[in-house]
Amino acid sequence: MAMMKTIHWFKPLILLILVAYPAMCVVWPMPQMMSTTSTVLTINSKKFTFQSSSKSDILHQAFERYMNISFIPLGKQIQPQLSESFNVTASSGSLTSLKVNVHSSKEELNLDSVENYTLTVTAKGATLDADEVWGALRGLETFSQLVEPTESGMFQINETKVIDFPRFKHRGMLVDTARHFLDMEVLYEHIDAMAYNKYNVFHWHIVDDESFPYDSKVLPEVTAKGSFNPKTHVYTADDITKIIKYCRYRGLRVIPEFDTPGHTRCWGRSKPNLLTKCYTGFLPNGKTGPINPIFPENYEFMKTLLSEVHKRFTDKYIHLGGDEVLLNCWKSNPDVRNWMVEKGLGNNISLLESYYESRLLGIASNLGYDYIIWQSVVDNNVKVMPSTVVNVYKGGFPAELDRVTKRNFTTILSSCWYLDIYAYGPDWKRYYSCEPFSFNGTQKQYDLIIGGESCIWTEYVDDTNLISRVWPRASGTAERLWSAKNVNSIALATPRIHDFRCKILIRRGIRAEPVTGPGFCEYEFGM
Amino acid sequence: MAMMKTIHWFKPLILLILVAYPAMCVVWPMPQMMSTTSTVLTINSKKFTFQSSSKSDILHQAFERYMNISFIPLGKQIQPQLSESFNVTASSGSLTSLKVNVHSSKEELNLDSVENYTLTVTAKGATLDADEVWGALRGLETFSQLVEPTESGMFQINETKVIDFPRFKHRGMLVDTARHFLDMEVLYEHIDAMAYNKYNVFHWHIVDDESFPYDSKVLPEVTAKGSFNPKTHVYTADDITKIIKYCRYRGLRVIPEFDTPGHTRCWGRSKPNLLTKCYTGFLPNGKTGPINPIFPENYEFMKTLLSEVHKRFTDKYIHLGGDEVLLNCWKSNPDVRNWMVEKGLGNNISLLESYYESRLLGIASNLGYDYIIWQSVVDNNVKVMPSTVVNVYKGGFPAELDRVTKRNFTTILSSCWYLDIYAYGPDWKRYYSCEPFSFNGTQKQYDLIIGGESCIWTEYVDDTNLISRVWPRASGTAERLWSAKNVNSIALATPRIHDFRCKILIRRGIRAEPVTGPGFCEYEFGM
Repeated sequence: MAMMKTIHWFKPLILLILVAYPAMCVVWPMPQMMSTTSTVLTINSKKFTFQSSSKSDILHQAFERYMNISFIPLGKQIQPQLSESFNVTASSGSLTSLKVNVHSSKEELNLDSVENYTLTVTAKGATLDADEVWGALRGLETFSQLVEPTESGMFQINETKVIDFPRFKHRGMLVDTARHFLDMEVLYEHIDAMAYNKYNVFHWHIVDDESFPYDSKVLPEVTAKGSFNPKTHVYTADDITKIIKYCRYRGLRVIPEFDTPGHTRCWGRSKPNLLTKCYTGFLPNGKTGPINPIFPENYEFMKTLLSEVHKRFTDKYIHLGGDEVLLNCWKSNPDVRNWMVEKGLGNNISLLESYYESRLLGIASNLGYDYIIWQSVVDNNVKVMPSTVVNVYKGGFPAELDRVTKRNFTTILSSCWYLDIYAYGPDWKRYYSCEPFSFNGTQKQYDLIIGGESCIWTEYVDDTNLISRVWPRASGTAERLWSAKNVNSIALATPRIHDFRCKILIRRGIRAEPVTGPGFCEYEFGM
Repeated sequence: MAMMKTIHWFKPLILLILVAYPAMCVVWPMPQMMSTTSTVLTINSKKFTFQSSSKSDILHQAFERYMNISFIPLGKQIQPQLSESFNVTASSGSLTSLKVNVHSSKEELNLDSVENYTLTVTAKGATLDADEVWGALRGLETFSQLVEPTESGMFQINETKVIDFPRFKHRGMLVDTARHFLDMEVLYEHIDAMAYNKYNVFHWHIVDDESFPYDSKVLPEVTAKGSFNPKTHVYTADDITKIIKYCRYRGLRVIPEFDTPGHTRCWGRSKPNLLTKCYTGFLPNGKTGPINPIFPENYEFMKTLLSEVHKRFTDKYIHLGGDEVLLNCWKSNPDVRNWMVEKGLGNNISLLESYYESRLLGIASNLGYDYIIWQSVVDNNVKVMPSTVVNVYKGGFPAELDRVTKRNFTTILSSCWYLDIYAYGPDWKRYYSCEPFSFNGTQKQYDLIIGGESCIWTEYVDDTNLISRVWPRASGTAERLWSAKNVNSIALATPRIHDFRCKILIRRGIRAEPVTGPGFCEYEFGM
């Protein structure tokens, strides 16, 4: 990545600031460069405005949100003592506006979106400069985190200069809505928290073995029999549109995952020939395995499904899964074995997996999709498009990242960021400490690592505990993916993540759990 | 325990019922005896009444609560379609009242309180019989769990007979409000959930090393300097009174814990001589250890504190802690060593611990207290009153229970019910499977085991996650402590705890997390 040199250049500056004003810098994830002076400017929230010559609806809706987010009083009991006519007389001066300049009107949200921004707050005024609106969103988030409420009901901000950009351009979170269904309101709250952490990809693992909450109009019977309840536990086309819009306005792409040929058990309830019948000896044992790759109609099924998905989801990318295929079920089925021999695949079951994946990826390509797949697919040498993104999720990830990037694949890392695997204590440190470049690669290899994803699989998670389970543990991943590589001190991060939880997440109503041991927030959740 | 024979007598009956009507029996914890028929009675909640000739305020307040709790519609969207004038015409009949007979007006809440009850629901009417009001509370809880809402907005109940009593008379939960402060509203919700699980002791671990949120009027400086914030993060005398009343009305005793001589670090901030100065070699190393046992004024301090505690808390018992005393700090201090020699204790540090404990227990006894202590105190052979309850908390608990009961001590078990220690997956099974009688003891020894306690230490728990962390994991302990010993099948308990979470806890607004793997509640939290 071209940015790497810049990051190294900034290193001494970052350390200097942390030493000089540790208490003021709540900003999480840590910006690439931030300098702060001891000059404090007062803000009367009732007189403050965001200003821009841009007509972008994304920007102006963000202004509305950040007027609320930036100026949250300390506690419910604290009423602002200021009237509209209040005039600041403090010697340091006051701030009445933030001028936002967005240099390009380009609003495509994709891997090439530019999130860089520069924020300057001085007694003479405050400006936020960004090439694209996406950088302005990141800058508004940083601005809002710099604003501090006071006990008088007034707000204040230190003179600050921030030059910022993400280390990785894909900073995602997988959310599994199949093991447990998640309510739209909970998803919105979760997406808010993602935006506060500068995540930019909502990886929607929408269906799996256990349920199919995708409300399909072209395959209604799959939804009817595959969802927990087709009335109450599904995402309609309208819901999906809402989530995509909600994400877009916060600078997050939505990448849906339809994982096949495994992880499809409930799909088979309405399609008797869709799944492979597993055999024990000469008899079917009543179990079903992966999608049966020998029936042409199953590829038609996938084409029908993905065509609808392609209309509902707007991102260039789809995640096609491909992990944990139960090859032994395929092997056990005599029809599958006979077919393999007929087709000249012999008894090499890996060739069968390749066959299925090739046809599936072909369907996706024909729809115009680029795709992400779990590492298993390329580990198995399936031929994929050069634009393919490989999602590394197994243990031993440094060696796998080395292998995958040597083969010239673009890759994203998830292995070390499984949030569902919970350990007693401050386990955010594990996520924080996971360094994607922890193998001895070339710069070209490192450049192929475009980011990573936290994963919240929901076997033991639903509406009751999603938010508290994920936050602020996922903030560890967020800083690793946004901030400079050398921002990696647990000692420095510990008080910061505590403050970020208390002063940003909790005050904004995000039910984030304590992760730094005994202690308290000045204003607790609900206070 | 005399009850054991009765339980064995009922065993075949319990199994019969589970086989016959598995879907109907949500009741958790499982009653000692329950028989259900397939006859379903309809209830119009608007015409239903609880009736009793008793004047007990506890009972009549319970009636008000259970009118709400028993008749919660399936979902927010479902409006009852019944009017006041609705008449049930279904052939099975209807139920319009529950007659509650409480045979004794005795309302002391202590170890000897009687919680037995008999509940009879037939087409001819429903009656709940209890010796004391505490049994009536348990019976109302069971009744409310038997009532099922229907999609019409109507309710129904099967003809049922329940004869029930607790296996153990002390069924507690330790709640630590020192590592993190817990808001009163969160405590109320938690106590509600305890009552739904038929817990009967709220063990309030109110203070510890990290904070002293007890708002003392006689030692205000300890609160001022020892609490996280003496205005916002303390429990006032009024708060304590409210918690005690809230618990009492739900049949829960409140036993406060003031753990000494260790676990007192923050107390020392306002009392320079209270804690022992630890030495490295010949010099104080800046650290403090347990309460300094050589200064007479420190016993005066404890007397002052416990006298106030005794006025505020109404239970006969206090928990005096005594665990994890850092003996090495005592040993390191030359003044302590010299004093020991003067007093004839030589260099036997265990004798010093005994000395402290003897004086402390004497103070408590003089105030009229009975006490519970952590096992360390009796492991160290401190002389304690015969009424002392030993709280076993370390690993290897079967051997310890054997030892302690052989020495004729009454005991409660906590070792296997630490809820803060979290493992991925359905770890409620560990709590459920922990059997107190898992050592080869005599009946007399078993009779000395009066119960146990779940413990939620709050290093990583606060208002944001207390409820979802504890529930329904603590329901595993609840059934172990209430139900018959042979109600111990994980296979049978798994669907029941799922239903209990969905149909009882979630519908009553308790944010209980999923613990049985992928799945759903018909009506999810918030639906």
